[in-house]
Amino acid sequence: MTIEVINLADKFSNFTEHWQPKIVAQMNDYHLKLAKIQGEFVWHQHATTDEVFMVIDGKMIIELRDGFLNLEEGELCVVPKGMEHKPAAVEECLILLIEPAGTRNTGNAEGERTAPADTWI
Amino acid sequence: MTIEVINLADKFSNFTEHWQPKIVAQMNDYHLKLAKIQGEFVWHQHATTDEVFMVIDGKMIIELRDGFLNLEEGELCVVPKGMEHKPAAVEECLILLIEPAGTRNTGNAEGERTAPADTWI
Repeated sequence: MTIEVINLADKFSNFTEHWQPKIVAQMNDYHLKLAKIQGEFVWHQHATTDEVFMVIDGKMIIELRDGFLNLEEGELCVVPKGMEHKPAAVEECLILLIEPAGTRNTGNAEGERTAPADTWI
Repeated sequence: MTIEVINLADKFSNFTEHWQPKIVAQMNDYHLKLAKIQGEFVWHQHATTDEVFMVIDGKMIIELRDGFLNLEEGELCVVPKGMEHKPAAVEECLILLIEPAGTRNTGNAEGERTAPADTWI
């Protein structure tokens, strides 16, 4: 049996750092990534791809240029390609991201918050 | 604000039928679908795509030709393209599927269990 059953809680227990997405699965040329977030991230956009945010535990905010999205556990949204957004969380929040393999966490805003896009757990 | 925050529980409350996936979001050319399942589905495979199964509530079984995968709430797996599989659930189980838009639920086994692949909720 070569198919791994991925337990999200187990995977989340493997790391503590914030804003550093970890790959847990690949579907075709897409990655499913887990991240722990707290505080404010940076404004950025992904010019070539939509991005799914799903909250597994906690609450997050996605600031857009014209408003805010508030997501809680069991909620998801799709940020369209090219749309500037700034994720944030007041308290630690655990999220699942779905995006093409190789997608940079900071999109067009490469800098000190840029994390490796190839770290599996 | 044109981005919908999708609450999975709310979406699941919109339908009752089993084995009829409903689209809740699109990311690039992929769909995120919700399904309620109970009982045994049919053996099938998807020749051109991997498929993500994530359990939102309950327990499911994915029978493979060489064994079984048991998935519970908070767990997911990726069934590789071309791999025959038969999903099942003893009691009703609520799942999230991720696959390319237009993917047929019965894959190569079109028949009476085939559901529309374009139903949004």
